[in-house]
Amino acid sequence: MPDKSLMEVFPTPGDEPFVVEHVNEEFTSVCPVTGHPDFGVITVRFSPRGKKAGGVCVELKSLKLYFQSFRNEGIYYEAVTNVIRDDLASAMNPVWIQVITNWKGRGGIRSVIRAERGDVPAEWRGK
Amino acid sequence: MPDKSLMEVFPTPGDEPFVVEHVNEEFTSVCPVTGHPDFGVITVRFSPRGKKAGGVCVELKSLKLYFQSFRNEGIYYEAVTNVIRDDLASAMNPVWIQVITNWKGRGGIRSVIRAERGDVPAEWRGK
Amino acid sequence: MPDKSLMEVFPTPGDEPFVVEHVNEEFTSVCPVTGHPDFGVITVRFSPRGKKAGGVCVELKSLKLYFQSFRNEGIYYEAVTNVIRDDLASAMNPVWIQVITNWKGRGGIRSVIRAERGDVPAEWRGK
Amino acid sequence: MPDKSLMEVFPTPGDEPFVVEHVNEEFTSVCPVTGHPDFGVITVRFSPRGKKAGGVCVELKSLKLYFQSFRNEGIYYEAVTNVIRDDLASAMNPVWIQVITNWKGRGGIRSVIRAERGDVPAEWRGK
Amino acid sequence: MPDKSLMEVFPTPGDEPFVVEHVNEEFTSVCPVTGHPDFGVITVRFSPRGKKAGGVCVELKSLKLYFQSFRNEGIYYEAVTNVIRDDLASAMNPVWIQVITNWKGRGGIRSVIRAERGDVPAEWRGK
Amino acid sequence: MPDKSLMEVFPTPGDEPFVVEHVNEEFTSVCPVTGHPDFGVITVRFSPRGKKAGGVCVELKSLKLYFQSFRNEGIYYEAVTNVIRDDLASAMNPVWIQVITNWKGRGGIRSVIRAERGDVPAEWRGK
Amino acid sequence: MPDKSLMEVFPTPGDEPFVVEHVNEEFTSVCPVTGHPDFGVITVRFSPRGKKAGGVCVELKSLKLYFQSFRNEGIYYEAVTNVIRDDLASAMNPVWIQVITNWKGRGGIRSVIRAERGDVPAEWRGK
Amino acid sequence: MPDKSLMEVFPTPGDEPFVVEHVNEEFTSVCPVTGHPDFGVITVRFSPRGKKAGGVCVELKSLKLYFQSFRNEGIYYEAVTNVIRDDLASAMNPVWIQVITNWKGRGGIRSVIRAERGDVPAEWRGK
Amino acid sequence: MPDKSLMEVFPTPGDEPFVVEHVNEEFTSVCPVTGHPDFGVITVRFSPRGKKAGGVCVELKSLKLYFQSFRNEGIYYEAVTNVIRDDLASAMNPVWIQVITNWKGRGGIRSVIRAERGDVPAEWRGK
Amino acid sequence: MPDKSLMEVFPTPGDEPFVVEHVNEEFTSVCPVTGHPDFGVITVRFSPRGKKAGGVCVELKSLKLYFQSFRNEGIYYEAVTNVIRDDLASAMNPVWIQVITNWKGRGGIRSVIRAERGDVPAEWRGK
Repeated sequence: MPDKSLMEVFPTPGDEPFVVEHVNEEFTSVCPVTGHPDFGVITVRFSPRGKKAGGVCVELKSLKLYFQSFRNEGIYYEAVTNVIRDDLASAMNPVWIQVITNWKGRGGIRSVIRAERGDVPAEWRGK
Repeated sequence: MPDKSLMEVFPTPGDEPFVVEHVNEEFTSVCPVTGHPDFGVITVRFSPRGKKAGGVCVELKSLKLYFQSFRNEGIYYEAVTNVIRDDLASAMNPVWIQVITNWKGRGGIRSVIRAERGDVPAEWRGK
Repeated sequence: MPDKSLMEVFPTPGDEPFVVEHVNEEFTSVCPVTGHPDFGVITVRFSPRGKKAGGVCVELKSLKLYFQSFRNEGIYYEAVTNVIRDDLASAMNPVWIQVITNWKGRGGIRSVIRAERGDVPAEWRGK
Repeated sequence: MPDKSLMEVFPTPGDEPFVVEHVNEEFTSVCPVTGHPDFGVITVRFSPRGKKAGGVCVELKSLKLYFQSFRNEGIYYEAVTNVIRDDLASAMNPVWIQVITNWKGRGGIRSVIRAERGDVPAEWRGK
Repeated sequence: MPDKSLMEVFPTPGDEPFVVEHVNEEFTSVCPVTGHPDFGVITVRFSPRGKKAGGVCVELKSLKLYFQSFRNEGIYYEAVTNVIRDDLASAMNPVWIQVITNWKGRGGIRSVIRAERGDVPAEWRGK
Repeated sequence: MPDKSLMEVFPTPGDEPFVVEHVNEEFTSVCPVTGHPDFGVITVRFSPRGKKAGGVCVELKSLKLYFQSFRNEGIYYEAVTNVIRDDLASAMNPVWIQVITNWKGRGGIRSVIRAERGDVPAEWRGK
Repeated sequence: MPDKSLMEVFPTPGDEPFVVEHVNEEFTSVCPVTGHPDFGVITVRFSPRGKKAGGVCVELKSLKLYFQSFRNEGIYYEAVTNVIRDDLASAMNPVWIQVITNWKGRGGIRSVIRAERGDVPAEWRGK
Repeated sequence: MPDKSLMEVFPTPGDEPFVVEHVNEEFTSVCPVTGHPDFGVITVRFSPRGKKAGGVCVELKSLKLYFQSFRNEGIYYEAVTNVIRDDLASAMNPVWIQVITNWKGRGGIRSVIRAERGDVPAEWRGK
Repeated sequence: MPDKSLMEVFPTPGDEPFVVEHVNEEFTSVCPVTGHPDFGVITVRFSPRGKKAGGVCVELKSLKLYFQSFRNEGIYYEAVTNVIRDDLASAMNPVWIQVITNWKGRGGIRSVIRAERGDVPAEWRGK
Repeated sequence: MPDKSLMEVFPTPGDEPFVVEHVNEEFTSVCPVTGHPDFGVITVRFSPRGKKAGGVCVELKSLKLYFQSFRNEGIYYEAVTNVIRDDLASAMNPVWIQVITNWKGRGGIRSVIRAERGDVPAEWRGK
């Protein structure tokens, strides 16, 4: 079951603009209808708040464990994307965040779902 | 015959900005002049209305069946593009929608047709 | 329905060793179980008999029409491969022939089927 | 000799924004100085006027024949680009048009020439 | 738990030489030491015995289910490779069989394990 | 018209084994049936006889002019391949020669034709 | 230990806009937690101040030595990125600077960290 | 020695917006410090003034000779970029010009230098 | 200092032919002459002896530590290759072993060194 | 002028089979007819004699200087290939040697020349 308590954070290193991107190429969950596994690539991109404002970044190993907690969860593409966005936003309260889930094809159709929160700068929108 | 009644929808998961992209790499229809098959890649990209506004997303398997209904239809590239845009717009009433059809070469020329509806954000135009 | 009478042949141009390869990247048939379309790349490779021995080559446009005759046929991967090998062997009586069908993935598994007839030289085996 | 009378047009399918792209990867003309053949990829991109405004699209097969009419013409890269832009603009009177000619290398230098007419939207400029 | 009873077979279509290749790009199991998931690409290649000799091929959907039965199994790379080779050999009794498991990197090292049974022809060895 | 008198040769530089490969990516001729241009990549590979045996190599610029002499010739794929093999074999009398013509797709099928003369070593067969 | 005194600079060649990009594909440091080596690609992009304003560029060989000084340093991704940005900004006082560190995957997740200083023009943001 | 007198120009073909790009993949000069050769790819992009304004384009073969004149010149990356920009700007007086030099790696670091003059449109900046 | 005592082994899983390949894309050592770091990709390929003959395989994590022990060692390409071959052969006593070291370019030249021991089968030689 | 005295050698490290490959991607010489520069990739592959037999390997930096000595030499592709083979064979007296020169296109034709000496094993012939 997706478990956001697995995520740990650490203080962001400074107050200047900063962008972090983590790409997990080994994400898997389960289709809630068919019970077959789904496989996707998850991209998380965010800008932490500055240090003085209490900004934090998610710790990499804890993020891996959080992603692994979806392994046997029956959950739709759209829900995966929204849940991860919500959990990361709640854990880090970043200036902005993007979550992009890119799924392997099913029945000849492959899908990409994008969810955001906050004021994503123009240069990151649509990427 | 293209049959938009095949498409089913489900409620969009929330009210925050959201972009969905489905890519069908196995589209085929028939050239109305020569009777030879055409093959293309269809990209559908849209932003559903928010949940409170009754926003919906097209269900993936029903979308596949809808695409398959073009299999033996004699229809031009431009018409395929417009029909899909119109049918999806009618089924989902999204904030905006793009349909891009990328066709395998014929006589040394390959073609890409793009149709849109609604206020497509700058970051998605021309993609 | 696959229709081998669509294939026409023309006399091979000479008596020296000769290898012809035709690759059809736009093959489609139908899964006999699910009724869903299958898409594949068909490679045909053969060495015609010499001119004095009455050797012939398949004519390209007629080959295309022959491939198109599978479009709405419900037929397994293995049968497609064997039928094409048999039909081409029967139409041309070549020194040797290979038919390789490379299918787009279904349920995360993609398949390649290879059938041959005659004494395929070492340099073409396994290709 | 480039012959724009070869081009035929058909009415554009509707009044909504629409972008058409045709890519000819098999263009050849002749260098007017050396008499050697030049080879290039021609990309034509345009937005037709709406149906009510009498908008038209170039017919694909006639476009192929038009491109083929350059085959033995001695003509510079820049002139090819401008002539195609002018001929297509004259045949279709589109909202905007781009012609991009991308030439194989000569003497270690490869060239790309871009000509436009009309108000090309930001998302297509520089592409 | 890997469950070979999931595999179903069907009679091979004829008596001529025949090679079948199935590639599963969505294999996952679990590292028995760390408990972390492993991801790999499994290639299965075999030549069924002829029809008269009672030759059979593995059915594709049942093969998928068999592969999925490793999902939560703690098992080493080498064991995965040997178990799949043994189970498929036992289910089909083929002329020869190869199983190649190609694993995503761990700690900067990626691994490929190859197991075979029977007289693999020269053109398939080392592939 | 293909004109083998355009080809010039020069003495091979020594008596030791030697392999020369020329790849022309800008070959074009005309389909004798439709009158439409064909485009292909021509690979010529040969081993000249030793210097003492009067071995010669084709001069590169003259080879280019020879290839250009096919530009407006109506000629089939198979004939192009055989004519080039014959003309080069006649001009150089090499130990062995291969001519491989790789043609852009027509109607969804692309073709490769291979002709040889002499005792082509195992390592070059099938390449 | 990262040693910014290794960096040497030379006067920028003029007063017109100028962008310099150095990409080091052979960066390595050490994870402060596990002691295992990290490997990444470091991209540095900056615009030096004009010559009259005393603008300088970092000398390439000294930059290499500076990068090598991280070899056995235990340091986080984020810190590497910030330290390099700070050290280069301090050494050159450029109009703007970007430092992008792109790290090889660890545990199936690969990361990209971006830090900037000064008024980075729109065309370089998000690259 | 770089010799700008080698460059010849010809009148631009018209008054409409026009962009020319020449890419030289075979540029070489010499490092003034080590005496070792440097190799790079030079991209020149410009928009000529209109015909009525006396606009001109650089002639391609003369450009090749100009580039070759750097072959044995000891000169830094930054200077190559600025000299080419200055020489081309002086020869053509274009509306705008970009010169991008992309150098093969030295000591594990590869560099790209960009110089411009005039009002480069947004769609070409940062490319 | 390269430390072969870091390597641990485990019993090979059976007696049938078996090939293991480990690719380390993150190898680094130091040039003994210049003191600059070298970076390479190390491929190790071997066939363990059968289980009854006491065959063993190297354990993956211990192999990683062994490779890391070269990090600050001044050692030539050829020596790295031979030392790894000798150490692995000594640790596992395999039927055959190949070690291939593929080094990033230095001064425009990149190198590949291959060392073997035992009777490497034809299909693996030269790979 | 090509100067083989630039090459230095060092004793081969042992008596077991060993293959060395050096690839120079930055080779340039001059066409003796046109005076224009030629650019190519030079691959040198050899097996040194064993240590007890006095086997030696060419030192990498001296090889670079030797290659650079062709920079302003007017010399044909075939001669470059033979001269390098002869000079390296004379400097190292290897068991076998291959020299492969792969030249950038001229007039739409690109060439590869291969020269060898000694008993090149089957797995390296034709590579």
